Amino acid sequence: MSYLKRPEWTWQPAERVTHVHHWVKQEGEADVVLFGAPLSRSSISASAASEYPEAFRKMWKGFAAYNLDERIDLTKVSVRDAGDVAMHTTNIKESHRRIEETVEGLADSKLTCMIGGDHSTTACAVRGVKKAFSRERIGILQLDTHLDVRDPKALGPANGTPIRQLIDGETVKGEDVVNIGLHGYFNTKELVEYADEKGIQMVTMREARRAGLTETIRKAVKALEHVDRIYATIDMDVLDISVAPGVPASTPGGMKSEELFEALLEIGKSEKVRHIDFVCLDPQKDNHVSATVKTGVYAWLQFMTGVAMRT
Amino acid sequence: MSYLKRPEWTWQPAERVTHVHHWVKQEGEADVVLFGAPLSRSSISASAASEYPEAFRKMWKGFAAYNLDERIDLTKVSVRDAGDVAMHTTNIKESHRRIEETVEGLADSKLTCMIGGDHSTTACAVRGVKKAFSRERIGILQLDTHLDVRDPKALGPANGTPIRQLIDGETVKGEDVVNIGLHGYFNTKELVEYADEKGIQMVTMREARRAGLTETIRKAVKALEHVDRIYATIDMDVLDISVAPGVPASTPGGMKSEELFEALLEIGKSEKVRHIDFVCLDPQKDNHVSATVKTGVYAWLQFMTGVAMRT
Amino acid sequence: MSYLKRPEWTWQPAERVTHVHHWVKQEGEADVVLFGAPLSRSSISASAASEYPEAFRKMWKGFAAYNLDERIDLTKVSVRDAGDVAMHTTNIKESHRRIEETVEGLADSKLTCMIGGDHSTTACAVRGVKKAFSRERIGILQLDTHLDVRDPKALGPANGTPIRQLIDGETVKGEDVVNIGLHGYFNTKELVEYADEKGIQMVTMREARRAGLTETIRKAVKALEHVDRIYATIDMDVLDISVAPGVPASTPGGMKSEELFEALLEIGKSEKVRHIDFVCLDPQKDNHVSATVKTGVYAWLQFMTGVAMRT
Amino acid sequence: MSYLKRPEWTWQPAERVTHVHHWVKQEGEADVVLFGAPLSRSSISASAASEYPEAFRKMWKGFAAYNLDERIDLTKVSVRDAGDVAMHTTNIKESHRRIEETVEGLADSKLTCMIGGDHSTTACAVRGVKKAFSRERIGILQLDTHLDVRDPKALGPANGTPIRQLIDGETVKGEDVVNIGLHGYFNTKELVEYADEKGIQMVTMREARRAGLTETIRKAVKALEHVDRIYATIDMDVLDISVAPGVPASTPGGMKSEELFEALLEIGKSEKVRHIDFVCLDPQKDNHVSATVKTGVYAWLQFMTGVAMRT
Amino acid sequence: MSYLKRPEWTWQPAERVTHVHHWVKQEGEADVVLFGAPLSRSSISASAASEYPEAFRKMWKGFAAYNLDERIDLTKVSVRDAGDVAMHTTNIKESHRRIEETVEGLADSKLTCMIGGDHSTTACAVRGVKKAFSRERIGILQLDTHLDVRDPKALGPANGTPIRQLIDGETVKGEDVVNIGLHGYFNTKELVEYADEKGIQMVTMREARRAGLTETIRKAVKALEHVDRIYATIDMDVLDISVAPGVPASTPGGMKSEELFEALLEIGKSEKVRHIDFVCLDPQKDNHVSATVKTGVYAWLQFMTGVAMRT
Amino acid sequence: MSYLKRPEWTWQPAERVTHVHHWVKQEGEADVVLFGAPLSRSSISASAASEYPEAFRKMWKGFAAYNLDERIDLTKVSVRDAGDVAMHTTNIKESHRRIEETVEGLADSKLTCMIGGDHSTTACAVRGVKKAFSRERIGILQLDTHLDVRDPKALGPANGTPIRQLIDGETVKGEDVVNIGLHGYFNTKELVEYADEKGIQMVTMREARRAGLTETIRKAVKALEHVDRIYATIDMDVLDISVAPGVPASTPGGMKSEELFEALLEIGKSEKVRHIDFVCLDPQKDNHVSATVKTGVYAWLQFMTGVAMRT
Repeated sequence: MSYLKRPEWTWQPAERVTHVHHWVKQEGEADVVLFGAPLSRSSISASAASEYPEAFRKMWKGFAAYNLDERIDLTKVSVRDAGDVAMHTTNIKESHRRIEETVEGLADSKLTCMIGGDHSTTACAVRGVKKAFSRERIGILQLDTHLDVRDPKALGPANGTPIRQLIDGETVKGEDVVNIGLHGYFNTKELVEYADEKGIQMVTMREARRAGLTETIRKAVKALEHVDRIYATIDMDVLDISVAPGVPASTPGGMKSEELFEALLEIGKSEKVRHIDFVCLDPQKDNHVSATVKTGVYAWLQFMTGVAMRT
Repeated sequence: MSYLKRPEWTWQPAERVTHVHHWVKQEGEADVVLFGAPLSRSSISASAASEYPEAFRKMWKGFAAYNLDERIDLTKVSVRDAGDVAMHTTNIKESHRRIEETVEGLADSKLTCMIGGDHSTTACAVRGVKKAFSRERIGILQLDTHLDVRDPKALGPANGTPIRQLIDGETVKGEDVVNIGLHGYFNTKELVEYADEKGIQMVTMREARRAGLTETIRKAVKALEHVDRIYATIDMDVLDISVAPGVPASTPGGMKSEELFEALLEIGKSEKVRHIDFVCLDPQKDNHVSATVKTGVYAWLQFMTGVAMRT
Repeated sequence: MSYLKRPEWTWQPAERVTHVHHWVKQEGEADVVLFGAPLSRSSISASAASEYPEAFRKMWKGFAAYNLDERIDLTKVSVRDAGDVAMHTTNIKESHRRIEETVEGLADSKLTCMIGGDHSTTACAVRGVKKAFSRERIGILQLDTHLDVRDPKALGPANGTPIRQLIDGETVKGEDVVNIGLHGYFNTKELVEYADEKGIQMVTMREARRAGLTETIRKAVKALEHVDRIYATIDMDVLDISVAPGVPASTPGGMKSEELFEALLEIGKSEKVRHIDFVCLDPQKDNHVSATVKTGVYAWLQFMTGVAMRT
Repeated sequence: MSYLKRPEWTWQPAERVTHVHHWVKQEGEADVVLFGAPLSRSSISASAASEYPEAFRKMWKGFAAYNLDERIDLTKVSVRDAGDVAMHTTNIKESHRRIEETVEGLADSKLTCMIGGDHSTTACAVRGVKKAFSRERIGILQLDTHLDVRDPKALGPANGTPIRQLIDGETVKGEDVVNIGLHGYFNTKELVEYADEKGIQMVTMREARRAGLTETIRKAVKALEHVDRIYATIDMDVLDISVAPGVPASTPGGMKSEELFEALLEIGKSEKVRHIDFVCLDPQKDNHVSATVKTGVYAWLQFMTGVAMRT
Repeated sequence: MSYLKRPEWTWQPAERVTHVHHWVKQEGEADVVLFGAPLSRSSISASAASEYPEAFRKMWKGFAAYNLDERIDLTKVSVRDAGDVAMHTTNIKESHRRIEETVEGLADSKLTCMIGGDHSTTACAVRGVKKAFSRERIGILQLDTHLDVRDPKALGPANGTPIRQLIDGETVKGEDVVNIGLHGYFNTKELVEYADEKGIQMVTMREARRAGLTETIRKAVKALEHVDRIYATIDMDVLDISVAPGVPASTPGGMKSEELFEALLEIGKSEKVRHIDFVCLDPQKDNHVSATVKTGVYAWLQFMTGVAMRT
Repeated sequence: MSYLKRPEWTWQPAERVTHVHHWVKQEGEADVVLFGAPLSRSSISASAASEYPEAFRKMWKGFAAYNLDERIDLTKVSVRDAGDVAMHTTNIKESHRRIEETVEGLADSKLTCMIGGDHSTTACAVRGVKKAFSRERIGILQLDTHLDVRDPKALGPANGTPIRQLIDGETVKGEDVVNIGLHGYFNTKELVEYADEKGIQMVTMREARRAGLTETIRKAVKALEHVDRIYATIDMDVLDISVAPGVPASTPGGMKSEELFEALLEIGKSEKVRHIDFVCLDPQKDNHVSATVKTGVYAWLQFMTGVAMRT
């Protein structure tokens, strides 16, 4: 008898499907398609968010595919990991184009999950969805400390600009954007004025906390009931810096992890949400116990639990 | 006149008893007996929880022996530090036997506090108590993110198995175990099924938070009113990773430190609680300000405050 | 055309005033005068809180001069940064004297903000205010985990002693001190007895949390309505260690950042508060994402928002 | 055209073999067999050296399979990664038995490379070799700051004991052990006396440095010319603490990385060396740039370069 | 008398010129022109080398403008800091164009020092020099662990390609490049073959160490005596990982800091060297004592000492 | 039989004297007297060197009391740890006076070892020696990157001033000071001019390395042969920053640990050396493996080995 075995991390076929890395399959049909967009050289400040797709997947083996709070076995939903969009090394526009084209190709999946990358990838992804469904009205449910409406005319398609790209580019209407989690001193007066002018629906962290996150998400989904599909974008910088050291733009006064988890369960439950992304988590800046990456995986699993609860 | 003095950390006799290291005595009779079980080579993943007893004691000098919230002088309770159980370097079973035998010898103290070590030590300690009080029915009040009912037939007496060791070994009945703090994706479906089958009372973190921790502990103690004595086991991985970086298995979405403190005050007040342990804190993984070790000492002092409030 | 430009951190004249470092001016008349007191060799334990004024200012460029929660443009209040008080390298008494003299000179500003330094600087600053307004009764609103009433006869004017210096020195009456944020095991019995004897109003963290921070501050200001002016002193060690790793004496069980922010908004709104300081933040001990320094700047901006909301 | 691709770390078939992870094959015949022995619960002090085989393999993609100094293409030597020896979770003796049995099975390979694990695994491996070649005389070429001759009667088969296990167990003669790299204050007088008594050949770091590492290895191999095969064991704690923070027992005054590299090239060239291991590197203690793991991979490649230079 | 003073880091006029930040002037004529090229989004792996110009300047105040070894007062050479080249946020080609144009404009200075940025900036800078001196033959003296001749056709103008850009673009001849510091396993076989084919002069770290760094530089300058001007490029990844944790591509077995300092003194002395850059140092990855940034400033000062020693 | 034992770090009587903490005694007559001077609030920049005496002693248990290189049993020399000089919390002058008085009282020991503290303590210690031996001429053998001759008239008795205090105060003659280890850019021109004027013998790091450290120390002792006793002061900032991260003023280009160890062995052997101190090591700034504190203990043991080799 030989005691030699392959290392677990090389992903042998599992005898039993108990953990997330057993559950997510590499090929075939699936309810949910997951893919990575490993781009962060478009970030205004230096970022290694490009490494999040890899860090995200490597953390799977630490999580069971079973939600104890809801007593739900996640394996009833099928998920395929389609891999990463290949990025150009130095041509950011070309990288953006590839993301857009890839999302267009995947957009008719029941659900798509994009793992960023910085927030510039969201603009590409929403444009990809729009190309696939050109007659549909797309709403954006954004969890973010920032409006992300800086001017692409000044910065190019950088990570501070995606919502403005989409509004100015007429992919999405300003009033079809709900931003939850704003607070403090992280948006200049002129950016708030732009948001007001375009009709972006702003929900501060304080308001969200007072109403409760579940209720806040319900209201937001309701406020978007006129759109055809909702694209949810989770900028992980919405989190408080004490729970998300690995997000360069996280701040004191932000969302707590249990609040994020509550919100994502409700987002998952919402039938109209057909696309989601998680962006701006930089594993190189995470702390020594990988608290932020763990929070990122947990958040995605909360969304998946909500999906599994859709009747 | 000489200005030369012994360094404080060598524990000179104190002129005044103001801090914890003055209060805990090394010898003599005492209401509470404290001892260390510095074993963590039984941990499934590599752990230095064996170093916690030392780190725990060295942190005492940073804490006053006075609880300001309750206006209670802790020195009214006497505590003796009985030292550490000597561990065998490579024979885990022998180390476990020594812990069991030691606890059996100390079990008739009014109260015992064991400072682990990993969670495998709890199985030994409860068996030691059972040997000392073979006719008594022992209840377990467990604060933990995990059920710790993995199968010792596969793993041996490792740190994921203590509750199952005790149930399968008929030391404790499944229905006499109350586990508080479960959540998320950290117990596979089959382990939850085992717990259900054995009648373990599971209280999720969400339920505990909604009811309030004081109320949750009261209910748990009430649910165990039929047992003769309660052994409380505090797996520090019940804590949120943002407050307990020094616990390898702590998670996002876990208990906050103020919630743990509230729970331990109430546990301390409960007359039926005769034994407690604190396990799985690995000082080598703590952050640069020793936040987790400080939280561990504070937690134990909350328990001691509760004890001081009995009668 | 030249693409060469001065680095931003050398503080060029800004085209537009959007961020804090554009807003705070270096010269001229202003509603609020800010200055640093870079002294921490008076700290009982080794501290680099002397480096906080520099770290505080360097962090300004990461904050907009606009509060989104209250929709308030901070630039309507004028602020002057008067620089740092020059400290003597080895003569602590002389350094203290210079702080006192400087504050006396600035005390007739509408508002003064001192950025410490350790808590010993507060005693100097309050004495400086007293010299400028010798007939006025000064109240102290203290956010702190500690009473800071250790005996200067034993320690000299160290950072554990400022409140006692002021009471024993008859600069302030014991009953005119309100301390908010006390908890746990960080004040010995005899210090609590001193505080009781002098009539210091102690509000525990637990009481403050139950009442809500806004309400707690309102009550505290009300309890000081008989004084002529309130000096608010924010010992950053009032914060929980998970949000303030960069404060050597922060503890588990302390105030959360959102609670501190809520409190400071209310303090800022209180007309009677004429002086404030922020002390004991040691940037060398901060974590790798400067979470504590960011929290310190946010806290000051909350105070400034409150000031901007006065009438 | 799809831009989606599998992440590189999942080890797709490579178009071109340029880096180490392309070169090492998972199956088939090979000149060199590599395997992991992920055991460190036998370590006297807490260690996660059990994680080194995984960390070692993951680092391969950062190294080309080409040695520029010698202008040697490593791919001319074939290497098979046989995986890890499956360890028992809590039974250290059983784990040791499995390593011994596995090495016995692999011992007739041209060359075996064992990646530890702690130094206790070496005793098992040498016993395995001895079983396979019971009539051969085995010499040990040890790079180590310690003699590792502590008494297994006191500690069991712990990581401080392997050389004594082998000598007292008559697997190897004391005079057939050459230890290079000893220095300073890391071996007690009685252990040095044991080594003298058994005839262990001790070469201090100072002597090795003065002679040069290449010359030192040549002399050592020469001193073992009477044995049938040499087992080289590289305890990474031979390295200086400034270059090997990730080895818990590394010390100031130890070997520099370039010296280790020089030594391993020469060891690789020596025909009689038929087995090698690298032990005691704990990736959890490595610094934030993984300097020690990188040094470990480089060291192994130097050995492989030497092997490739064997005529 | 007021004790209030501006913080030192705001660069007041100095009473005496004793340290580097006093010595380097912001305006006017100077022997040496220094400027920053804060670009690293062109790096293959994520890098914050764009932050090095700022970190480099902030470290100046820790260095005296006097070389004790050579007893040379650096202030006899005049240096002007021309600021940073303004980078485009997302258009890498445009950023590269700006660097090229800026260097062309500055190229007739007696000496230019560019502070990168990643190594892609070197290609731009050399092209800028070439435009200014189109008839001159330019030699490159490169300190680097890598050849940096990866193919721009595959990667675009990324940081692994600059030397190949210059050779394939006929800005520089292959035989006019001397690369010092190569070693180990960091260049694939095919890249070495390219270098051989183009005639790049490769000096390994081992050869340089054996000859001595001063002698190695002398030989390299001699080998370039036929060119009109030498552009020296110092890729800080030539350094050993133990002395340069803040350079993402530094390796074990690299150059020691004292060797780098010796080399730079000699480079500074060489009349033909008219341009120098320092690239690929990422301050975000530096360790907690900023060892790498300090090494970077020291290295530049060694070069400046050499310049001051030119007759 | 009880398995309970006191924790090792509480210093039980040892069965066998094998390690340093067994060897150093707390009381009685001894050849060498060791004491701590835990003062660093006199440091120009913030320092916790006051914590070094404690960290130094706690590290003893990791070192055997046997030198393998020299085959010397250190226990043949007797050492007494006299404890720490009690420091005043805020009165630096008083603390300095106590050190001076304490050293005066201990100065007739065969050898004194002071564990600092910052370098200001050296001035006090030498004055204490001078008071005890007022007719003797005292030489200073200084290992340091800095001259430490800044002006006490400007700074008071801060850590940059001790050598100037002693020269200007006529305790020691300038020509009786030998400073070894100077290099680079860490002494301004005017300080070097002061040193020249006073006749301080400066040996650069480069000169010391070329001559060899043993030879350099021999020459220095020879250069002081006219004095009656030598006081050796080891400013740990003489070390290279890569080996001494825990010394705030360590620099790139400094002494390597093996060079320091070689120097200290020779200093220990020199009969005329009667006093030694080790200063400026700040344990709070050390890295996560305590490399600097380990280096500090090793350095002291090298000195002790030299002492054991006298006669």
